[in-house]
Amino acid sequence: MSGTLKEHCGVVGIYNHPEAANLAYLGLYALQHRGQESAGILSLDGNKMFIEKGMGKVADVINQARLAQLPGSAAIGHVRYSTSGESSLAESQPLMAKYASGTIGITHNGNLINAERIRSLLVEDGSIFQSTTDSEVIVHLIARSRAAGFAQRVIDSLSKIEGAYSLIFLTETQMIGTRDPHGFHPLALGRIGDGYCIVSETCAMDLIGATLIREIDPGEMVIIDETGIKSFRPFPSQKTRFCVFEYIYFARPDSTIHGLNVHMVRKEFGRQLARESAVDADVVISIPDSGTSAALGYAEESGIPYDIGMIRNRYVGRTFIEPKQSIRHFGVKLKLNPVKELLSGKRVIVIDDSIVRATTSKKIVSLIRGVGAREIHLRISSPPTCFSCYYGIDTPTRQELIASSHTKDQICSYVEADSLEYISVEGMRRSVGPMGDKICDACFTGDYPLPVKEEHFVQLRLFDSI
Amino acid sequence: MSGTLKEHCGVVGIYNHPEAANLAYLGLYALQHRGQESAGILSLDGNKMFIEKGMGKVADVINQARLAQLPGSAAIGHVRYSTSGESSLAESQPLMAKYASGTIGITHNGNLINAERIRSLLVEDGSIFQSTTDSEVIVHLIARSRAAGFAQRVIDSLSKIEGAYSLIFLTETQMIGTRDPHGFHPLALGRIGDGYCIVSETCAMDLIGATLIREIDPGEMVIIDETGIKSFRPFPSQKTRFCVFEYIYFARPDSTIHGLNVHMVRKEFGRQLARESAVDADVVISIPDSGTSAALGYAEESGIPYDIGMIRNRYVGRTFIEPKQSIRHFGVKLKLNPVKELLSGKRVIVIDDSIVRATTSKKIVSLIRGVGAREIHLRISSPPTCFSCYYGIDTPTRQELIASSHTKDQICSYVEADSLEYISVEGMRRSVGPMGDKICDACFTGDYPLPVKEEHFVQLRLFDSI
Amino acid sequence: MSGTLKEHCGVVGIYNHPEAANLAYLGLYALQHRGQESAGILSLDGNKMFIEKGMGKVADVINQARLAQLPGSAAIGHVRYSTSGESSLAESQPLMAKYASGTIGITHNGNLINAERIRSLLVEDGSIFQSTTDSEVIVHLIARSRAAGFAQRVIDSLSKIEGAYSLIFLTETQMIGTRDPHGFHPLALGRIGDGYCIVSETCAMDLIGATLIREIDPGEMVIIDETGIKSFRPFPSQKTRFCVFEYIYFARPDSTIHGLNVHMVRKEFGRQLARESAVDADVVISIPDSGTSAALGYAEESGIPYDIGMIRNRYVGRTFIEPKQSIRHFGVKLKLNPVKELLSGKRVIVIDDSIVRATTSKKIVSLIRGVGAREIHLRISSPPTCFSCYYGIDTPTRQELIASSHTKDQICSYVEADSLEYISVEGMRRSVGPMGDKICDACFTGDYPLPVKEEHFVQLRLFDSI
Amino acid sequence: MSGTLKEHCGVVGIYNHPEAANLAYLGLYALQHRGQESAGILSLDGNKMFIEKGMGKVADVINQARLAQLPGSAAIGHVRYSTSGESSLAESQPLMAKYASGTIGITHNGNLINAERIRSLLVEDGSIFQSTTDSEVIVHLIARSRAAGFAQRVIDSLSKIEGAYSLIFLTETQMIGTRDPHGFHPLALGRIGDGYCIVSETCAMDLIGATLIREIDPGEMVIIDETGIKSFRPFPSQKTRFCVFEYIYFARPDSTIHGLNVHMVRKEFGRQLARESAVDADVVISIPDSGTSAALGYAEESGIPYDIGMIRNRYVGRTFIEPKQSIRHFGVKLKLNPVKELLSGKRVIVIDDSIVRATTSKKIVSLIRGVGAREIHLRISSPPTCFSCYYGIDTPTRQELIASSHTKDQICSYVEADSLEYISVEGMRRSVGPMGDKICDACFTGDYPLPVKEEHFVQLRLFDSI
Repeated sequence: MSGTLKEHCGVVGIYNHPEAANLAYLGLYALQHRGQESAGILSLDGNKMFIEKGMGKVADVINQARLAQLPGSAAIGHVRYSTSGESSLAESQPLMAKYASGTIGITHNGNLINAERIRSLLVEDGSIFQSTTDSEVIVHLIARSRAAGFAQRVIDSLSKIEGAYSLIFLTETQMIGTRDPHGFHPLALGRIGDGYCIVSETCAMDLIGATLIREIDPGEMVIIDETGIKSFRPFPSQKTRFCVFEYIYFARPDSTIHGLNVHMVRKEFGRQLARESAVDADVVISIPDSGTSAALGYAEESGIPYDIGMIRNRYVGRTFIEPKQSIRHFGVKLKLNPVKELLSGKRVIVIDDSIVRATTSKKIVSLIRGVGAREIHLRISSPPTCFSCYYGIDTPTRQELIASSHTKDQICSYVEADSLEYISVEGMRRSVGPMGDKICDACFTGDYPLPVKEEHFVQLRLFDSI
Repeated sequence: MSGTLKEHCGVVGIYNHPEAANLAYLGLYALQHRGQESAGILSLDGNKMFIEKGMGKVADVINQARLAQLPGSAAIGHVRYSTSGESSLAESQPLMAKYASGTIGITHNGNLINAERIRSLLVEDGSIFQSTTDSEVIVHLIARSRAAGFAQRVIDSLSKIEGAYSLIFLTETQMIGTRDPHGFHPLALGRIGDGYCIVSETCAMDLIGATLIREIDPGEMVIIDETGIKSFRPFPSQKTRFCVFEYIYFARPDSTIHGLNVHMVRKEFGRQLARESAVDADVVISIPDSGTSAALGYAEESGIPYDIGMIRNRYVGRTFIEPKQSIRHFGVKLKLNPVKELLSGKRVIVIDDSIVRATTSKKIVSLIRGVGAREIHLRISSPPTCFSCYYGIDTPTRQELIASSHTKDQICSYVEADSLEYISVEGMRRSVGPMGDKICDACFTGDYPLPVKEEHFVQLRLFDSI
Repeated sequence: MSGTLKEHCGVVGIYNHPEAANLAYLGLYALQHRGQESAGILSLDGNKMFIEKGMGKVADVINQARLAQLPGSAAIGHVRYSTSGESSLAESQPLMAKYASGTIGITHNGNLINAERIRSLLVEDGSIFQSTTDSEVIVHLIARSRAAGFAQRVIDSLSKIEGAYSLIFLTETQMIGTRDPHGFHPLALGRIGDGYCIVSETCAMDLIGATLIREIDPGEMVIIDETGIKSFRPFPSQKTRFCVFEYIYFARPDSTIHGLNVHMVRKEFGRQLARESAVDADVVISIPDSGTSAALGYAEESGIPYDIGMIRNRYVGRTFIEPKQSIRHFGVKLKLNPVKELLSGKRVIVIDDSIVRATTSKKIVSLIRGVGAREIHLRISSPPTCFSCYYGIDTPTRQELIASSHTKDQICSYVEADSLEYISVEGMRRSVGPMGDKICDACFTGDYPLPVKEEHFVQLRLFDSI
Repeated sequence: MSGTLKEHCGVVGIYNHPEAANLAYLGLYALQHRGQESAGILSLDGNKMFIEKGMGKVADVINQARLAQLPGSAAIGHVRYSTSGESSLAESQPLMAKYASGTIGITHNGNLINAERIRSLLVEDGSIFQSTTDSEVIVHLIARSRAAGFAQRVIDSLSKIEGAYSLIFLTETQMIGTRDPHGFHPLALGRIGDGYCIVSETCAMDLIGATLIREIDPGEMVIIDETGIKSFRPFPSQKTRFCVFEYIYFARPDSTIHGLNVHMVRKEFGRQLARESAVDADVVISIPDSGTSAALGYAEESGIPYDIGMIRNRYVGRTFIEPKQSIRHFGVKLKLNPVKELLSGKRVIVIDDSIVRATTSKKIVSLIRGVGAREIHLRISSPPTCFSCYYGIDTPTRQELIASSHTKDQICSYVEADSLEYISVEGMRRSVGPMGDKICDACFTGDYPLPVKEEHFVQLRLFDSI
């Protein structure tokens, strides 16, 4: 609900399978939570590449007729987060480009921090860009590289860029998957039939019936061609800094990342939160669906029963038409309705995964109060979000993050809860166990693995509530 | 998930409000779970009626431009369940017709059991039908009635029909809401601003900010016009037989019907089920979302912890493209993925709301077994479904209902669970408390409130799995 | 160009041909000039009827996929003239209806003059109408008829109506073509392969490779079934009154009607006009395309050379976006551009087929004057249009017909021509030779074959210039 | 009809007018005959460019909503000829690109003959192309140019290319129109209100109310900015070689090019043809619409009367659905129907503008013979087409041009005419008077102004009949 930090993208690649495009389509279906703005698939048949993409969810964009236009035994696909604006189709992926030695398809999850600078240099020298995406910078670097062979061109190009990337490339003869040295975003390698797949999250493998081989390591480049798989480590080694928000909110609960099941991690966040900020109450509820795993953990640890306190409308679409005469808390009510018979007269613990601008939290507290809850204790399964992300998560600017300028008490007072507690940074780290020192938690701590000057960074878009 | 018994329709009416059509639209939004096949709104401005309808969900059918074509201070709306076929738009509602004294709009939730016979008589006498819906029979009866005044025409017409109906009529001067004498389906009356609303479920009132006045009684006719509300009881009194499947599966958990909150009733089904069929296990999970309330009740009563054992893909659309080379349990996997880390090695109690043909249950058991569950105990929060419904629920024919021809043990063996138990009819009745002797449970017991000859009844459509 | 009197419709029927719907589609293609608002085809396969219709031209409405939905060996089709308005799809044809003994399809070219009165009676008695077309009245009369057998029901029904009709009916076992006793509009019978066709104009037969058998006579009813063709004359005989505007403007020049080729008749109108109103000049030009045949005749008779003085834009669509800052004579210039090099300094005779409101004529004269013509002599190949039509032609109300209230000299002065002459009524009659006393020329003479009270007649729509 | 040589494109530019995009839209409307595949408009508002383009005719592509997305006081537009294929939208124009100093919009009519070679060099050096159009080569050359200032970059780039081009560029501060040194295709400069326009043909100026200033000369570059118009001649002077097919077939008859009205030139072709190849006959008819001007000239010179012998269906769209069971001469009959009453028993002279593969001519002769013509004399108002065009006209390969391998007698025999004559090359040159030695007639003579190796030249597409 309040998980209004948005993941950028999900990627999928299929190699050497007679139904490559159909599997890519299903993989994107399973990764749809990583982006609903646009979807696209590029396939390779012989030496020819085909591409179909459009605005919307994968099942809306790719119909039977368009899927039939994607022949061949290799395919890559991409889903992108929801935004608006005229140029959106040009920004959608996969990207396809012809260069001197052939054709490249590319899908990218992440964000480059020096893309603007490189782009200026390329344009100065006569390159023509079709979009404003940082991903296109990589395409131009590859086209201009003087290195011999495609893989070398990729290495040459990636050595010039800084930032977060989980990338899949497809050429006439190979599929390449690679992850930046810090490994900000997930990327996993699997086997399907006689071929291979590369996907953002393991839940996509579950759907298409693939078997996880292993995750692609930070800084690793995996090349798949007709001879099989080869692994390279062409980049200087760095400390792993995996985005902890993938565990907190983005990833699907049934995915396993770096060996940890996401639902289980979230339950542990909830248990830790209960240990850190116990309060006497009658019932633990969650803001569905993202807060539910943590709420179960909180209930288990605290001994206070979990219940379904808010019903989510499962049919909410991208748009709705608001009445002119405003309805109170309209936006939130479209999605959530509290169960009065359960909450009336109760002391309620409400678990949410994060607070961004707090406007939604305020409305939710008011809704719950409106059906007669006696006390409302807000518990957040992530630490206060004080800093913007530059590695592929769409956050508002620092000024808009309420925790960057307000104390916990001020926020509690603003949302009109009876109490508000966040999990501690230390508690969060402990909850992810072996990954505790391998996460990027810059949005909570400001400890950026790659330095960024905020004023030079173009925010991808303004933060939207709900 | 396995709730493949489908509700027919949801209805909404708004009277005397400057944004009538917009509120009808939002009301349908909240009632979308009652039908996703088609949506439509009819509005009244002065003496002129406007209508917009189409195939799909309300937010897809009614865009800003179409809503702007629905002026006026009264409106009625309708959502219909999902089916296919060329003639579907003609079957969608509201229906609008001109008759000698003016224009009528009508929306209908339910099913008439003598529609075919009346229709034949009308056609014989020169009436021309536009659709195959039983609702159109009512329109023709009204047009042909010789009674004086619209309300009398309605009474005259309804006295000729038998079956289930929650109806809203709109004319140039009044809105009428009425419910059949048995009260099979819900219909509630509310106040909004200076006007009134009539809706299938109270969750629609919550969204639009209306206040529940009361439910419309079985056999009651409520007339709303510029002088206010009047209530009539023009039909012989009957024993109330409210569809218990509304409590079990159809209605939204946040709705209150006949004074009982649906989520609370479902939890009680779960508690009762636990009392009737306890089993030693490690975890209680549900088939989301419909089984979750009962699972919480089961867990509470049994003391065995509830957890999220299956993750539902929230982005599943109406269509997807299956690969030619079949994926095992593909249909179920598109929607549900078990959490291996939670279920592996565990004894699992799985709560579902009903079993229809058992094919889906079989796949789900197999999926859970596939991630290593040690034991699987299936518990169903409704009794065995042995009989078809003729009052507005889309059930398969009796032959297809597995419980009509198989014992519980045979079904358990077919779905390959370690044990299978249903709630008892008596337990179900007890769980709905004061409503216990006012429900229609013909689908479990064969005790039909209105007699039907199955062979004469055209089944609305074949049962589709998933 | 200025032929802003609009034909209502074109009809086609195919019986006993394996590609019935495709031939109906092509027949409508050839009859497209008779109506561009909507198009539709109904086909019969076994006992089942299929229908596809929509707004627009036939090639836009019926695509490959929709044509594939029209199986069977019999089909009827319809094109309708261009209008606007929300209810248009409901007004489009063919109409299809179920009645006690089966299903009927119907297409109608013409206009009934007592439809409103019959409609009121039917509604009073409980009939429900779906459209505002007079054609639907016929359907209800048939459904209510107590006569035995479909053909008798048709005769029973048509005996109640007055007006103009060229009708094709299709039932499960027969196709019926019939024409009103005055024979206002054309209808021809042909043979195609082993089957038959009925079409509005012979040009449709030319395209589909059918052979003209003969025209269906005024007052005749032709029944085609598996035993062959039978002809009946069920209605009292009347004097033939064929719409002379079909010869003047509506019909395609390559069609033959009542034994006369339309292009040849139009040339004769031109010759007669030259005989009646000679003037010294350098060149004869036409308003393309409708005035060209008459212009050739005028040139031939007068000895003054014909030339192409105005170029018509062949790509004009239904809509265009006008600039805010108005362009002089914009509407006319979108369609026509004078050839300056030809007209500059010349004395020009301009042939047009009719003048309705004269606003377009005025613009055309101004355009021609604007490229330097020395003299402009307007010659009209029909008499002054002084009266509205009630038999199937969309004319403006009498007040809007300039000739109803202005003398020839006043009109000439208004359009700013150097001279203006019309063909005489007598000259027009002489030009159609043997048909001279069998035409309806009520729009010129006010001699209405069927009496109409103008004030009771709802004009179909206001007259639109260009 | 048989004018199956296709023009590539039409271009329009508007500078300094408050309704720039709307005028560009109307200009394209008037130039629609130059291309129906795709249409597009790019506008400039302040420093920002907007673009809307799509497949189809301009009135279908640019609706009110899209036009509203094109603000500003400068705009350029483009229509492109009809073809098929998935990549067509990418090929459509205007093209827009960002380069180091700003943004360029470009529209191009013509064809470059060394584009493939330059493209290879650019790709080798890292340029990424979005389309297969030769026009995109110009964009990349400009982006890479090291010259100072946009105009110098354009000159630098055009000095590298060879071929035919009428180009309009738009930047943030200027509009540039330029024509290749041979001046293959037309381009005219006009004044509209306080601003300027550049268009392919003068008929576009007539519609929008612009005044012709003069044509842009071959080899001239006109720069329009806020200071007014400046003219440059940056390229070495060449002999003018204007495409004579613009006079024969492509241009609209109401356009004036190089001082000659197109309709008048075509009439002169007809007169010359009559002088060269007189034959005794009863009537002169044309294949409408392209042969009509020449037919009038032929009739005038020969004294044999002109008449309308074939009626063209004015509603022919891009697609139609053919019956499986083939109709004789179906394709031709869809468009043309002979007037039997006129032609039966007559000796007929048929004027057409050109013969390409002769398959259509053969069908037309057969159609006319089919309605009873006694003799058919085919007269062609252009010389035999023996050579392919490489400068912007879509011709079939030489092998497909019947005149490249067959004598006149062989062609006459193939089409089954009684006689066949073409205008002579010398007669054609004489007919264009002062332009006689300034035309490109390579398609008739093989005298290519710019040398081309046919085997290296990728034909744009296969020739399609009808």
